[in-house]
Amino acid sequence: MIKLPLALLAPALAAPLLAQAPAAAPPPPIVVAPWIHALRDDALANDRYAFDITEGLTTEVGQRMAGTAAEARARAWSVAKLKAMGFGNVRVETFDMPVWVRGPESADILAPFAQKLVVAALGNSASTGPAGVTGQIVAFDSVDALRAAPDAAVRGKIVFIDHRMMPTMDGSSYGQFGAPRRAGPTLASQKGELATVVRSIGTDYHRNPHTGVMGFTDGARPIPAGALTLPDSEQLVRILKRGKPVTMRLRLESTTIASAQSGNVIAEVPGRDSNLPPVLAACHLDSWDQATGALDDAAGCGIVTAAAKRIMDAGRPLRTIRVVWFGAEEVGLFGGLDYLAKHGKEPHHAAAESDFGADRIWKVDSKLGEARRDEARMIGAALAPLGIVTGAFDEAGGSDIGPLLDSGVPGVGLGQDGTRYFDVHHTPDDTLVKVDSAQMRQNVAALTAMLGVLSGGIAPKSRVRR
Amino acid sequence: MIKLPLALLAPALAAPLLAQAPAAAPPPPIVVAPWIHALRDDALANDRYAFDITEGLTTEVGQRMAGTAAEARARAWSVAKLKAMGFGNVRVETFDMPVWVRGPESADILAPFAQKLVVAALGNSASTGPAGVTGQIVAFDSVDALRAAPDAAVRGKIVFIDHRMMPTMDGSSYGQFGAPRRAGPTLASQKGELATVVRSIGTDYHRNPHTGVMGFTDGARPIPAGALTLPDSEQLVRILKRGKPVTMRLRLESTTIASAQSGNVIAEVPGRDSNLPPVLAACHLDSWDQATGALDDAAGCGIVTAAAKRIMDAGRPLRTIRVVWFGAEEVGLFGGLDYLAKHGKEPHHAAAESDFGADRIWKVDSKLGEARRDEARMIGAALAPLGIVTGAFDEAGGSDIGPLLDSGVPGVGLGQDGTRYFDVHHTPDDTLVKVDSAQMRQNVAALTAMLGVLSGGIAPKSRVRR
Repeated sequence: MIKLPLALLAPALAAPLLAQAPAAAPPPPIVVAPWIHALRDDALANDRYAFDITEGLTTEVGQRMAGTAAEARARAWSVAKLKAMGFGNVRVETFDMPVWVRGPESADILAPFAQKLVVAALGNSASTGPAGVTGQIVAFDSVDALRAAPDAAVRGKIVFIDHRMMPTMDGSSYGQFGAPRRAGPTLASQKGELATVVRSIGTDYHRNPHTGVMGFTDGARPIPAGALTLPDSEQLVRILKRGKPVTMRLRLESTTIASAQSGNVIAEVPGRDSNLPPVLAACHLDSWDQATGALDDAAGCGIVTAAAKRIMDAGRPLRTIRVVWFGAEEVGLFGGLDYLAKHGKEPHHAAAESDFGADRIWKVDSKLGEARRDEARMIGAALAPLGIVTGAFDEAGGSDIGPLLDSGVPGVGLGQDGTRYFDVHHTPDDTLVKVDSAQMRQNVAALTAMLGVLSGGIAPKSRVRR
Repeated sequence: MIKLPLALLAPALAAPLLAQAPAAAPPPPIVVAPWIHALRDDALANDRYAFDITEGLTTEVGQRMAGTAAEARARAWSVAKLKAMGFGNVRVETFDMPVWVRGPESADILAPFAQKLVVAALGNSASTGPAGVTGQIVAFDSVDALRAAPDAAVRGKIVFIDHRMMPTMDGSSYGQFGAPRRAGPTLASQKGELATVVRSIGTDYHRNPHTGVMGFTDGARPIPAGALTLPDSEQLVRILKRGKPVTMRLRLESTTIASAQSGNVIAEVPGRDSNLPPVLAACHLDSWDQATGALDDAAGCGIVTAAAKRIMDAGRPLRTIRVVWFGAEEVGLFGGLDYLAKHGKEPHHAAAESDFGADRIWKVDSKLGEARRDEARMIGAALAPLGIVTGAFDEAGGSDIGPLLDSGVPGVGLGQDGTRYFDVHHTPDDTLVKVDSAQMRQNVAALTAMLGVLSGGIAPKSRVRR
């Protein structure tokens, strides 16, 4: 049995009494315009734009590591694609950034049981050079356990840091259990370790390691830092449990380029009133280097661009919709920060981003401000038929748009189901086959309805829809 | 509705009639001894031997490529383990064989869309050397399509051969769709191709390529031959569909050793009557080099050895149970052929093998001969409570024991559920985490009951169980 809240039952129970007393004014009803329902449902049933963009970008460009020639090819592809789709003001805003490039890598257990483990360097790892570094493994269950260890116990050794991340629908476990990658290498360096390997901050049990960016803070000297796959991490734990000293030769070669070009690709659906602030719909164009970045974040670019295109197909919105395919997100939000520097002082009506795969949206949060509560409620009402619940009115998030939201730009946060996201995220498995096109269409439907509300109504050739 | 065969309904329907007429003599009832039920059910609930062997071999040795130092370490590990478990006559029978050793490998699309694909060389591939070979890709859906192509269309090119293998419970699709790997390279060589890449003969959609042995027959000159993962094969198909010439640089380095040592590890549960032929329970010790060979075939060694050990724990069987962990199965059945050469003329009561992972057994076939039909029926009756159906009485199979069965040795074939076997088989994903210990115990229970029947009864310290 499902218990209904008493409030839902109350109107019927209390009706006779209320009929005899003056009632409080009910909140104004939220009526979603029929054209929004129609655009949303058409996207849900028929969208091909999102998958087409995702398929094209991952097939014709492949991986798009920030600051590399591949990301430059991706920008050229994106400009051509967005122009071909009919977007206006298609342009690239470039910026410079440092680049870290992966080289050959291996992790060999030399003793007591000689065997190879599968490893990937973390972004910004120091290079071991071709000879690698060899040292005894010391293992810790968490960064806290490493912190508590005396420096003498780990100095000159290779530290392995484990963790217990499980999948969560909202993806919050990635933040909660990500300390081995984010804080581990700096702490290891400060304690005088030779190198560090962490259990991949992911949830899949295939031999595909999870990379990701990290940085050495507080003046810590860079050391080699890599991630073992989950099966290899558990293998290492089993080997350690045998109680004999374990020696590893870790080779993580890499090179760095002090400064290279990246850029944000920007395209617009011009609004009828160019004096009104635009609605920003974001994703990021760059990917990690181990796969084609289908879910992270070609799919996001496909979803937001498909939604904007569907509005454009229907007519002309009141406000401009600005689509931004940010560059260099993975390696440090360089694109988001460049946009903030160049456009942060301009007003924006709202910003939203798709950067959490392509599985179904289950919740919509927003932070449009108290005065725009009805607009926020309208978004919730427009998305509810997709099985999307309305969450908070004082919250919105997004990776590339994070700096912009922090600066005070209003935002909408579309929460996707992240249960299987960290099975493929940042691993060699982030390829097109992992995109569920039916769930992707639900995303496009939600974004289309959201943009329908935020853009303030569409004028078709014959009349203004409102 | 499930239709019952009329024969099942007949006794009830026909009882009044039959009561008035002389009945044909019913077949003698098959009564499984209570001690067999007890041993089987104890294995199902409590076995730890099989997982312990699988965990130990994969952890303390890792990969065990035939003819390498790793396989030699595996033999030493196995001898120590089997002696520690109390087996008798533990010994190694060595033989020599040629060895192929994998080197660095890569598959780079150079044009029209530069990107890296994931590849693994097939066993016995020619080496490309460090520079690799570069050529245009020509694609075929099947070996038959390649065969039909004019030689001029493929000469000097790199041929990609696709296929449509889907998982099947009995694993038969592996044979049916495996032609690209088995026949493809020879055909490609005969047609003057530069090299060949095939879609992995597997069913998983992770970026872990499926290797396996192949040979160049009919005097064909060896050429480089590799397997792309399923996601990479489908990526290549998408790239080809764009209609522009596709160029690949394929690097598959390898070395060969003309002759190196491998060997079969043999251990016995000595029978009460040493004049009776032994029951052979087989698996193979070697593995492919990309993973720890947990399912192929450490698990098989765990299962057959656990079953023999459980018989030994209960008492002394009438017939000797001979456990053989064959060497060099993957690369050409060298161990099975060596055993046949050395022991093929000795009588064997029966042979059975576990070499298809550790998922549940669903069927038992046998080929014990017409005179031993009751023994075969007894095995079926002993296994039925595990949800195992009795199949054919004129069929038995097994990889290492294949030559022995072909020579006329009676056999029992325990059919495991292979639906997910080719998700991990011969790929980097064949590691311990893929072993389902509950299903593994069902295997041990079945093998224990089978050995209970075939070994002819156990004598405990106090009395003979029969």
